[in-house]
Amino acid sequence: MNIVLLSGGSGKRLWPLSNDIRSKQFIKIFKKRDGSYESMVQRIYRQIRSVDENAKITIATSRAQVSSIHNQLGDQVGISVEPCRRDTFPAIALASVYLAEVEGVSQEESVVVCPVDPYVEEDYFRALKALERQADKEEANLILMGIQPAYPSEKYGYIIPADREAISKVLAFREKPDAKTAKEYIDHGGALWNGGVFAYKLKYILCKAHEMMDFRDYQDLLDRFETMPKISFDYAVVEKESSIQVMRFPGQWKDLGTWNTLTEAMEEECVGDGVMDDSCENVHIINELGLPVLAMGLKDVVISASPDGILVSDKHQSSYMKPLVDELDRQIMFAEKSWGSFRILDVGTESLTIKVTLNPGHRMNYHSHLNRDEVWVVIQGTGQAITDSVYREIGVGDIVTMKAGCRHTVTAYSELQLIEVQLGREISKNDKQKYPFD
Amino acid sequence: MNIVLLSGGSGKRLWPLSNDIRSKQFIKIFKKRDGSYESMVQRIYRQIRSVDENAKITIATSRAQVSSIHNQLGDQVGISVEPCRRDTFPAIALASVYLAEVEGVSQEESVVVCPVDPYVEEDYFRALKALERQADKEEANLILMGIQPAYPSEKYGYIIPADREAISKVLAFREKPDAKTAKEYIDHGGALWNGGVFAYKLKYILCKAHEMMDFRDYQDLLDRFETMPKISFDYAVVEKESSIQVMRFPGQWKDLGTWNTLTEAMEEECVGDGVMDDSCENVHIINELGLPVLAMGLKDVVISASPDGILVSDKHQSSYMKPLVDELDRQIMFAEKSWGSFRILDVGTESLTIKVTLNPGHRMNYHSHLNRDEVWVVIQGTGQAITDSVYREIGVGDIVTMKAGCRHTVTAYSELQLIEVQLGREISKNDKQKYPFD
Repeated sequence: MNIVLLSGGSGKRLWPLSNDIRSKQFIKIFKKRDGSYESMVQRIYRQIRSVDENAKITIATSRAQVSSIHNQLGDQVGISVEPCRRDTFPAIALASVYLAEVEGVSQEESVVVCPVDPYVEEDYFRALKALERQADKEEANLILMGIQPAYPSEKYGYIIPADREAISKVLAFREKPDAKTAKEYIDHGGALWNGGVFAYKLKYILCKAHEMMDFRDYQDLLDRFETMPKISFDYAVVEKESSIQVMRFPGQWKDLGTWNTLTEAMEEECVGDGVMDDSCENVHIINELGLPVLAMGLKDVVISASPDGILVSDKHQSSYMKPLVDELDRQIMFAEKSWGSFRILDVGTESLTIKVTLNPGHRMNYHSHLNRDEVWVVIQGTGQAITDSVYREIGVGDIVTMKAGCRHTVTAYSELQLIEVQLGREISKNDKQKYPFD
Repeated sequence: MNIVLLSGGSGKRLWPLSNDIRSKQFIKIFKKRDGSYESMVQRIYRQIRSVDENAKITIATSRAQVSSIHNQLGDQVGISVEPCRRDTFPAIALASVYLAEVEGVSQEESVVVCPVDPYVEEDYFRALKALERQADKEEANLILMGIQPAYPSEKYGYIIPADREAISKVLAFREKPDAKTAKEYIDHGGALWNGGVFAYKLKYILCKAHEMMDFRDYQDLLDRFETMPKISFDYAVVEKESSIQVMRFPGQWKDLGTWNTLTEAMEEECVGDGVMDDSCENVHIINELGLPVLAMGLKDVVISASPDGILVSDKHQSSYMKPLVDELDRQIMFAEKSWGSFRILDVGTESLTIKVTLNPGHRMNYHSHLNRDEVWVVIQGTGQAITDSVYREIGVGDIVTMKAGCRHTVTAYSELQLIEVQLGREISKNDKQKYPFD
């Protein structure tokens, strides 16, 4: 199965666990059988592999997420990186051209596209395979998955099928109706939720892409991506296509876009360090800080704490957080990188103290800073530091000093933890010159 | 006026802002006119000084609070330090002997004793002076302040006066009645709250002290303090004394023992970095962390965050927190010391990273550690470090390394901030040998 996972925007409605560089799909919130936790993207990746171990999985995403994807899924997953955000049609077109040219997928093969963030079980992935087989038949240009509505939601678009068969022709689409209208659609028309899941033959979308966008090949599309139209796949393709089928999916499907829905999908009331008293009802704690959270006498509340901030919200009310979070707009205190992660420990007037963790075998870029000195104190592990082309083995207690301008990097032998103290009047993440290795 | 402020225990009902070494009276939570914040002890000290600039103020407290008192009030305040906790009678006796012997107060002078933690206005301090003048008259051995009840509380003891005059003889005491009984006491007997405020001639308590405890002088009492009876002042003196008057106080008096009452006394909904949406009602945020708190859709909730933890509680429910906090029982992440403060930034497997702030002109003890190496990186200010008798001027960017066993200290010229990285397998605050200066 060729599957393209659309890994979307930053998900500010799940602040403080998602931010501009760490999106909700990377939050480790779902408990696995072995007691450890996995993220949405890790969960869906594992689920696809368990249904089809040879699936060719490609993640369509922005540059900002590439580090997190490598950190969480390793280097084997395909990534179609959008140079900038251009809505879903250019994104899906780019991923399709990537599959054809970079991954060498035949134009006669089918491709399944689905969002990375629904909370689903294995039957969903078996349905994706059925979707692929249906696309193989070429009875229609596009095969949609229609999700059997759990209730007449106002949040989703609806697909109106021609009949109530497992697979039927699509009569029409309806965008987010009010609850009463939604109920009518469902009761009288057998309407289905549109979860943004569909399959097509690769040649179909390649053809559409060339019809609507001017480019020669993958590299050319990448180079000119910024000039492509901002247009959704629904608008560009689905609404104009007459040959569409919908395949009914009656299983569990939850959209995890808000704290309200996300906490419903959590197995445990508390992830991380937290205690609640007996008088708490329907309270969830998700705590990434090294401090305990104590909750008392609360009802329908989510508490979420990360190095970026602390949310305490009525669960329903939390879906309105976006404008408030936009106002907060501050330094990102934690980030996962391809080589490991960092956490800001202290922001001084002319200093910044950071804990850097490098995964074994990884190294950061070889780089220098114009306007700041840096000091590393090794607190765990061993590795090799390079400063101005001088190699040096380092271990716990070793100190590396780097004046402004000094080129430096470090490679981890075992998991390496450094306390990095940055010193200068103008400390900025943009003050970074990268160099090739000597 | 001689005034003894009783500065009591750790106040775990105000976790996470109070803990075993920082008590509630030191939380900076009250906004001053200039926009800065002051603590209970700073507020009451300032208020006393504004009514009587020559007041001799003595704080009766435990050893654990001495650093915080010096940090917040400077070195001029008198402190009667109890070598261990022995309840209020030995504490008041010790403070009285301290006044007589150390401060040279005449036995004929009057002394006013009151707790450090009520939330009161200036009329309260004028009432304290009136209490002192009444004690001067020697019409009775003990003059109590009787607080006009705001409501029939079940939390306080009651004083039953002989009549409804401003000053009257005391007929009886009643310990924490139920609300109905309290209402009867107030309606029919003109009962008053006992707020633990009273005045006496110094000679009276000195005499009582020698009657009930075996000691020669102040030093002897200190030395033998641990063997003294654990007995309350009420039980040892008040309940046995027949010559007692009560003076009515009709002004504002609030006990700030729980988050419920403390937040009532706060002028602002939010101290520290916090945002709440319009749907919040009667919500308070007290945030000492360098992270924003976002509150949405909450009612009657207090959110309090400090380096020790995060509390989110229904305000009324918060008064039951003590057993839950006792369970948390963990490393103290922030502390004020006589020389400044420290904050734990990161706890590693074999490392501890701390931010140390030294106030100008102050220095830490000259000390060494058996089982850990330390590294200092200066991030702000200038000072002088001493390592194994070697003196060295230090400033921003300087690094000081101290192997286990190395004697070290640092003096701040200006406010000095250090990132201290401790490295070792057995890092413990008890691993500290102090030395006199060379």
